[in-house]
Amino acid sequence: MHIKLFIPGPVDVAEDVLQKMATPMIGHRTKDASVLQKSISDKMRKLMYTENEILLSTSSGSGLMEGAVRSCTRKKAACFSVGAFGKRWYQMAKANNVPADLFESEAGHPTTPEMVEKALATGEYDLVTVTHNETSTGVMNPVGEISEVMKKYPEVIFCVDTVSSLAGAKIPVDEWGIDICIASTQKCLGLPAGLAITSFSEKAVKAAKEVEFRGMYLDLLLLYETIQKKNYQYPSTPSLSHMFALDYQLDKILEEGFDERFNRHEEMAKYVRAWAMKNFDLFAEDGYRSNTLTTVLNTKGISVKELNEKLGERGFMISNGYGDFKEKTFRIAHMADTTLDDLKELIGHIEDILDL
Amino acid sequence: MHIKLFIPGPVDVAEDVLQKMATPMIGHRTKDASVLQKSISDKMRKLMYTENEILLSTSSGSGLMEGAVRSCTRKKAACFSVGAFGKRWYQMAKANNVPADLFESEAGHPTTPEMVEKALATGEYDLVTVTHNETSTGVMNPVGEISEVMKKYPEVIFCVDTVSSLAGAKIPVDEWGIDICIASTQKCLGLPAGLAITSFSEKAVKAAKEVEFRGMYLDLLLLYETIQKKNYQYPSTPSLSHMFALDYQLDKILEEGFDERFNRHEEMAKYVRAWAMKNFDLFAEDGYRSNTLTTVLNTKGISVKELNEKLGERGFMISNGYGDFKEKTFRIAHMADTTLDDLKELIGHIEDILDL
Repeated sequence: MHIKLFIPGPVDVAEDVLQKMATPMIGHRTKDASVLQKSISDKMRKLMYTENEILLSTSSGSGLMEGAVRSCTRKKAACFSVGAFGKRWYQMAKANNVPADLFESEAGHPTTPEMVEKALATGEYDLVTVTHNETSTGVMNPVGEISEVMKKYPEVIFCVDTVSSLAGAKIPVDEWGIDICIASTQKCLGLPAGLAITSFSEKAVKAAKEVEFRGMYLDLLLLYETIQKKNYQYPSTPSLSHMFALDYQLDKILEEGFDERFNRHEEMAKYVRAWAMKNFDLFAEDGYRSNTLTTVLNTKGISVKELNEKLGERGFMISNGYGDFKEKTFRIAHMADTTLDDLKELIGHIEDILDL
Repeated sequence: MHIKLFIPGPVDVAEDVLQKMATPMIGHRTKDASVLQKSISDKMRKLMYTENEILLSTSSGSGLMEGAVRSCTRKKAACFSVGAFGKRWYQMAKANNVPADLFESEAGHPTTPEMVEKALATGEYDLVTVTHNETSTGVMNPVGEISEVMKKYPEVIFCVDTVSSLAGAKIPVDEWGIDICIASTQKCLGLPAGLAITSFSEKAVKAAKEVEFRGMYLDLLLLYETIQKKNYQYPSTPSLSHMFALDYQLDKILEEGFDERFNRHEEMAKYVRAWAMKNFDLFAEDGYRSNTLTTVLNTKGISVKELNEKLGERGFMISNGYGDFKEKTFRIAHMADTTLDDLKELIGHIEDILDL
């Protein structure tokens, strides 16, 4: 029995998209490979509302996050964290001997524009990392408001982790002045895990040129320069399977319509939130709740583990809380091609199991 | 029309293996994910003739090569190169500020045990990188002989790039004392590109523990420790699609039999070499010729580009020479699930086109 996934990635992938993963191989130094990567880039630019170059990385989103902080920090990075993935960006900097400071918000609360302003006013930092959507807590940060602060500091590179929100929420990269906007295939894009995508601004290109040791595989400048030199080809052998599937899925996303897709995610979020508030409570602060994932505060003290086991017997899977919140919260993702009807079916089973 | 690939990766993938790439997603923190990675590891250990731990990386082989030289070099790396991929290992070290020296052989000639002995006798190095099979020149290095030298220097970490030979030639990892033996899915393993695999010895674990800045995504120690801690799970979200396909393909390889598989590759190599010697010449020195790829010296001054274009019209693709040798050589890969009959068909077309 296939278990229907309501976890924050990997998500369920539509059968026709899965089939594209089985496309026969082509040479990665052929014109066809260039055409494929160019096609993906053009569509991704639309989805990201940007004119910036698009880089692909055969890695998880973590690979590109590490590449970003290492490739573009010249002085020091200010890493704003609202949970595990925000903190990971700081840890990545430290693991690469990149100077960085961590600015944490209390669990469930956002990174505020004031926090960013205060840090940047010191003049110490030339790169900022912010999580748009934090799947460990269910917080969606006010990146639009933060971007107003960023605009006062044009020398600072603005990196945003949209791994779990891109294609599920509108992220106007150019309007918000995001230099590096990172996404991953296995979340709202509705594809299997294994490929990461980022936009890369001219400002980021210039910054990377000032950094001496950027490594190679995750060096964003090398990815960028190879595209220019080799007509949209990748430095090493990429996951062509993911590229075939991504190109196809982007057509489906364009067909659905961006606004329709973002609205569908919002509608699903509203439904799950209302249900959670009626029966439990919400973990994330009001006004900063994710449209792609809801973190439910386990006010009833139910056994999350047992709930998930029983859901599993019925062919469904949600996610326990992250780390220390394993039993204190549970998480329901509503991403990618999930519909309101899918969610209603899931919630029906949860109510039945918990006798709500 | 599908173009049948005789290039040194990506290779053609059997239809049933391709279909495994379309397996529905599962959670990467589930028991099923642990069972899958454990199953792959057990089979890979057999194929590598090793007791060492197996690490997977959602990256190309280059990712693990960079991770190896960065994670385990404490003093200085000695990088032996017989072509583009050997040199790349040195460039990766330099890009990470890892002290390294480059020892190059003339194109077409191998790394000799004497070269390694001479370098190690200086006492300067604590890590050696050697290419087993260099696809840019068609040289297969005498790693067995080199391993005899390595045994005199037990403190030195022995890294071997078997990206284009593993599963096409016998590589007895433990007998040869290889600490880090790197392979990639899109070559002799007969899978799509997008996943890399390495063995990792206890000696390598100890070495990595002495290195302070290993990064994160390509940190081999983190991959190793996560396996121990999380029961064969990957630190970030892996390409589960490749893992499903790899697990399945390893069963097929076990079914064919290792010796049978290696013999098939040898038989194909002998056939192509004999044909090349009759009509052209071979680029690699006698005694060091690859069993998985033949680099033909273009003694007739044919247009390689034109030959490949005409082959393309018939549904076949070979590879031009690498870099500076683009028109001076051409390369025919005989890897993975390619058969002698496939090769005979290809050669028939080449003879027809060139009127040989």
